[in-house]
Amino acid sequence: MSQSFADEPCEACRSDDDPLTEEAYADYLAELDDDVWEVVDDHHLSATYSFEDFRDALEFTYEIGELAEEEWHHPDIGLEWGEVTVDMWTHKIDGLHKTDFVMAARMDRIHQQGSY
Amino acid sequence: MSQSFADEPCEACRSDDDPLTEEAYADYLAELDDDVWEVVDDHHLSATYSFEDFRDALEFTYEIGELAEEEWHHPDIGLEWGEVTVDMWTHKIDGLHKTDFVMAARMDRIHQQGSY
Repeated sequence: MSQSFADEPCEACRSDDDPLTEEAYADYLAELDDDVWEVVDDHHLSATYSFEDFRDALEFTYEIGELAEEEWHHPDIGLEWGEVTVDMWTHKIDGLHKTDFVMAARMDRIHQQGSY
Repeated sequence: MSQSFADEPCEACRSDDDPLTEEAYADYLAELDDDVWEVVDDHHLSATYSFEDFRDALEFTYEIGELAEEEWHHPDIGLEWGEVTVDMWTHKIDGLHKTDFVMAARMDRIHQQGSY
């Protein structure tokens, strides 16, 4: 993941934006950890992060929850022993926006830089 | 929910304990918030807690995660805007133990006493 992509701003989504097509999001997807992220049905991003135990998964959940609040872009998160799943899309356009990929890149950075 | 039930200790589960039957767990289930909890397939407890927004759901998730660590009894938790779901059972016996119900009562207390 390039440093620069995660540092890009989360652009405001306008309701007349079209959801990204595969051709449009391919370069963004290439910026993400491909062991973690996939695009499902050209509609949403889905991730599975692995951890040693419950505590690490809980702390990661809280950190990406804080990110969601800061950017006001809220995924669905699943937390269990040793695993955190994330499903994320832009509700306003019922599909994928560049912001989803920038958020995903920031989660990858939190995961890589965390003391898990 | 009675104060006393949530204050009962989480008993250690032995692998030769039998999972609770409906007859055995009915009194425990009656101690829980019946707008929130149900028993599914006589196998696990399932809860849906509602919140005003994502922040409150995130803070509640962290609090019940801390409880799980303290008691070393770890549920699966789903976090999304305005909602936290919990699925909980005792893996050692692949079913329900009294500890699951005591944990659920403590989550109800956290929910009721939290500043959500």
